[in-house]
Amino acid sequence: MKPNLKIIKIGGKLIENEALLDSFLDDFVQLKGPKILCHGGGNKATEVADKLGFETKMIDGRRITDKDSMEVITMVYGGLLNKNIVGRLQSKKQNAIGLCGADGNVLISKRRPVKEIDYGFVGDVEKVNTKFINSLLEQGIVPVFSAISSTEDGVLLNTNGDSVASEIAIAMSELFQTKLYFCSEKKGVLKDINDENSVISEIDSEKYTKLVASKVITDGMLPKLHNCFQAIERGVDSVLLGDSGLLKRNATHTKIIK
Amino acid sequence: MKPNLKIIKIGGKLIENEALLDSFLDDFVQLKGPKILCHGGGNKATEVADKLGFETKMIDGRRITDKDSMEVITMVYGGLLNKNIVGRLQSKKQNAIGLCGADGNVLISKRRPVKEIDYGFVGDVEKVNTKFINSLLEQGIVPVFSAISSTEDGVLLNTNGDSVASEIAIAMSELFQTKLYFCSEKKGVLKDINDENSVISEIDSEKYTKLVASKVITDGMLPKLHNCFQAIERGVDSVLLGDSGLLKRNATHTKIIK
Repeated sequence: MKPNLKIIKIGGKLIENEALLDSFLDDFVQLKGPKILCHGGGNKATEVADKLGFETKMIDGRRITDKDSMEVITMVYGGLLNKNIVGRLQSKKQNAIGLCGADGNVLISKRRPVKEIDYGFVGDVEKVNTKFINSLLEQGIVPVFSAISSTEDGVLLNTNGDSVASEIAIAMSELFQTKLYFCSEKKGVLKDINDENSVISEIDSEKYTKLVASKVITDGMLPKLHNCFQAIERGVDSVLLGDSGLLKRNATHTKIIK
Repeated sequence: MKPNLKIIKIGGKLIENEALLDSFLDDFVQLKGPKILCHGGGNKATEVADKLGFETKMIDGRRITDKDSMEVITMVYGGLLNKNIVGRLQSKKQNAIGLCGADGNVLISKRRPVKEIDYGFVGDVEKVNTKFINSLLEQGIVPVFSAISSTEDGVLLNTNGDSVASEIAIAMSELFQTKLYFCSEKKGVLKDINDENSVISEIDSEKYTKLVASKVITDGMLPKLHNCFQAIERGVDSVLLGDSGLLKRNATHTKIIK
């Protein structure tokens, strides 16, 4: 049987709240066995871009990344947030390493082709260097991924953080039995967006189709769940959605099944 | 006999000039055998700090690093510059990985004690994780170090880039015959600061003492040469000082000998 591997994605809001992040990382270091952390960026990049006088453009919840924006993302995601998380993990005696896609050619992506929208320096992951990731895991080092991938020619690209986590989980499923966790602000997928306690405990693909049709699942939840089902269909063992307490025992969550 | 290892430090001005950096990296990827790249930051951090409304304080050519400054350094050195160099190396088909001291606990430092001056978040390297660096070299991956180290408790510290390169070279001398290169704006140590062609080809410790006494060596060159002699005395095989063309065959340079 394959050994277990946990891949955990944390969102922007969790990163921005120092106390929440610290509590989450306490739970994270308690997890047994090999594990990988992926993080988004959230508002800090927008904040820095604003101060530097760069305009942030969004279409359908996705950032349009021109050259200036990519500089800010490289600074904020690849530098500030990534290295601070690594430092915090080291402070909790968890060895870790911060990575963007160009590091060890670990996340190779293709620049998104221009159709109706030119997303700029945005890419979709095509290849994960599982051998390199595994060499880190074997040394007891937790890889911490910022949501930056790289083309084969070393061009850094802004990449959806959920997709980064999914693609890593999918690729690592060749070697491991993988469990993918998405930690965001909500305790899971809500039946009623205004009721924090209306978490749907389990969603299969049939239920998913219905929930989309009935507009229970909308906006940012759409690409997130798309990622979840992509992952399940391509080899990931299970996917859990929850809030910053998702790694705690008996945490409320939504489980995605085939 | 120990295998050879080259450690190359590049300064801020070289990084800021895209064409110079690119030409330097072309030379760098041509170097045979295992190699390590260390880079400083230069004016980009000051530029970003200014735009973000942070004041940059310098005493004796050393930056005073408060919490805000350390954030900027983590963004600019650890993110922007570091990841762009890694991307460029990948574009030249040289596998590489960007590191700050917290990554894999690779550069452990002690915060500089407060005497006359409180340097803030500034540290001096105390321990280099040679085992981890070696595991990267064995995989054919070039470690690219930004001038950020970390305390044992994961606190990121601004660290003199020349010292980072020296300390790495010294530590790696246990396993390798090491050659340390410092590339900056000058072709080497100049006899006459106003004459670019007055490069002193060789300096031993006796000559060094005389050059300091006669004020040929002053300002920023003092800590640089201090680092060079520290390195030579603690196991590094040779140290070369030159400009961005230092890695080219027959480049003018200053060689530091015991």
